Amino acid sequence: MIRFFADQKDISAKSIRLSTDDSKHIRTLRLRPDEHFIVCDGAGSDYICRLGERSDCTYAEITGKQKSPGEPSVLCKVFIAYSKGDRLDFAIQKSVELGVHEIILFESERCVAVPNDIPKKTARLQRIALETAKQSGRGIIPLVSSNGSFRDIIDKIADSSAFSMLFYECEDHLFIKDALDQHFPAVDSHKNNDTKQISLITGPEGGFEPQEVELARSKGIKIVSLGSRILRSETAPVAALAAIMYHTGNL
Amino acid sequence: MIRFFADQKDISAKSIRLSTDDSKHIRTLRLRPDEHFIVCDGAGSDYICRLGERSDCTYAEITGKQKSPGEPSVLCKVFIAYSKGDRLDFAIQKSVELGVHEIILFESERCVAVPNDIPKKTARLQRIALETAKQSGRGIIPLVSSNGSFRDIIDKIADSSAFSMLFYECEDHLFIKDALDQHFPAVDSHKNNDTKQISLITGPEGGFEPQEVELARSKGIKIVSLGSRILRSETAPVAALAAIMYHTGNL
Repeated sequence: MIRFFADQKDISAKSIRLSTDDSKHIRTLRLRPDEHFIVCDGAGSDYICRLGERSDCTYAEITGKQKSPGEPSVLCKVFIAYSKGDRLDFAIQKSVELGVHEIILFESERCVAVPNDIPKKTARLQRIALETAKQSGRGIIPLVSSNGSFRDIIDKIADSSAFSMLFYECEDHLFIKDALDQHFPAVDSHKNNDTKQISLITGPEGGFEPQEVELARSKGIKIVSLGSRILRSETAPVAALAAIMYHTGNL
Repeated sequence: MIRFFADQKDISAKSIRLSTDDSKHIRTLRLRPDEHFIVCDGAGSDYICRLGERSDCTYAEITGKQKSPGEPSVLCKVFIAYSKGDRLDFAIQKSVELGVHEIILFESERCVAVPNDIPKKTARLQRIALETAKQSGRGIIPLVSSNGSFRDIIDKIADSSAFSMLFYECEDHLFIKDALDQHFPAVDSHKNNDTKQISLITGPEGGFEPQEVELARSKGIKIVSLGSRILRSETAPVAALAAIMYHTGNL
């Protein structure tokens, strides 16, 4: 079923006011009055809707409500260093498909492509997250933000209670499977509902500087390998998320 | 270390004849005589080399040999339906990074973008596989081929001894984790050296027709879900490969 998101303030007991863009989209779809679609509140609930009586498609009539089936039981924040070209577009689209909760961009020493206009870039990536959340059936729109320097994000992560991993291409002892097995012992797939919080940090094209890795380690962040092949900067967060979703029974 | 591939016929006991393209590339790199690089035989062995005496960079002098560290212990063939735009480029690049052994393209009922010139398209994708194999440190160049229709590939897979999975968005009982747990009981990560063969089949943008799924099922292929979120056609093979590499201790 086609899917939209609405602000909670626009949702009343019987109907939902649709955004201008979504009204326009619905008009182009020429839905019949009996055709249903989903409006998600962005907080994990899906409203099954059909078009109301108004012919301008600005309101949806609620016919049912359910928990969004697309939300994983694990809350993953992914911290991604700025990188070149469309690599961030890709990383964000795939991360949202795979169930990321939040994406935070940052600058590290070897970044070769920090955007000139960070708010504009962040807004564009947020739009990619929104479109992907609709297409992939998410129950939230993962927030995309920019959070300054590597040191800033390390401090932020150190202050949180999340299990945190930084992926480093020179690490050859602790693999992601060992790290997850140690921290989250194997669960029966699709049967464990405890909410887990995990933070992941991935670097730019040239990787991290050794002193960046040591700073993260000194703050209690696990330094982890993604195996013996060299993954591109945009592939690392996607592979790590797929592994985590697999491990926690969310894939 | 920078990495090249050479044909086995060009490798002798003490030196390796480099391809015209690689010689040209090495000349542009302006390597010093003591700088080392790797020439891989494409069959899992890496030769540590330096430039020989000849100034035209057409020969590399062998100084050592080792098993390519980038090859996983699992041989995954991924069968991918034709899809639009650069989706195949992406799927092939990421699959090679994640350790795929071979990629086979095919046409299924809902394919909306079968290339006009299949040999040309396949050759282009093979070049992407080669470049990615160099960058990611693979010990082989995964073969990319086009293999006709869905029925053809199903027959081919049914004749093989590989454990086979078709990913279907309407499947809601058998998840990839359950399928792998049943077929390959958990192994200690990075300690199990048994070679496993797995075939994966992923569909085009519109997914598979129910009768295609039933044909695969009738031939003993497992019909498997990749979770409750809808993955794009190019994301499905990448997520599945990451999960398999994770499960088998290769990530």
